[in-house]
Amino acid sequence: MRAAAPPVEGLLETSLYAADLRRTAAFYRERFGFKTLVDSPRLVAFEVAAKPVLLVFPRGATEDDVVDARGTIPGHDGVGRLHLALSIAAADLEAWRARLFERGVPVAGEHHWPRGGTSRYFRDPDGALVELATPGLRW
Amino acid sequence: MRAAAPPVEGLLETSLYAADLRRTAAFYRERFGFKTLVDSPRLVAFEVAAKPVLLVFPRGATEDDVVDARGTIPGHDGVGRLHLALSIAAADLEAWRARLFERGVPVAGEHHWPRGGTSRYFRDPDGALVELATPGLRW
Repeated sequence: MRAAAPPVEGLLETSLYAADLRRTAAFYRERFGFKTLVDSPRLVAFEVAAKPVLLVFPRGATEDDVVDARGTIPGHDGVGRLHLALSIAAADLEAWRARLFERGVPVAGEHHWPRGGTSRYFRDPDGALVELATPGLRW
Repeated sequence: MRAAAPPVEGLLETSLYAADLRRTAAFYRERFGFKTLVDSPRLVAFEVAAKPVLLVFPRGATEDDVVDARGTIPGHDGVGRLHLALSIAAADLEAWRARLFERGVPVAGEHHWPRGGTSRYFRDPDGALVELATPGLRW
């Protein structure tokens, strides 16, 4: 018998890698109203609802390990049209579509799930696929 | 005056892109004990604590739009050593280190934050940087 894993309390952060950090940070700050936790040349971090944090790194600037008196942060990086999903209420779906369209972010796609939820898809300035999802998705 | 954004209730999903979907899915299932929500050739989805979902896609298999009677899911993809962080209790830090080491996942780095938190870093089979973070991080 193998021991159970200690508990994971939540998904704390997810990361994107921006060709132009200012431009992509402005996209999430202004389009989604996220509160800024860190704003530096290495990283912009946003609070998303109660806990999880959306990190935006300048692409190519995090490839090396960071080693100092506090320890080591190993290198990480990414390219491509990454994907993240944000939860919204069904009643806010049209307000979101209108708000993003007015600000120059057209709908990239829409999907209706068997359990009743709707996913609307948008692209951020780096091409990442941002999903706004109402309850009743695949899960 | 510009209208405030409608509320975002949470970060619902984050995605990884695996060179070998079975291998990477097994890493998260067995090492972290995540409950499987979907297990298909296109996607493995794990429940992470109460709400957020960790998606693992086979690399290169999601590049095209999916268009059917339910709508359109635009293409997405990613390569690189992506980054995600998971919340744990400070009391579980050593249990996590021991568990992962015993299962062949060595520590890739460790960082001590000014506010008292510790981050331990590991690599998944694709090289993604997985962080286990105790309370008292940068935020």
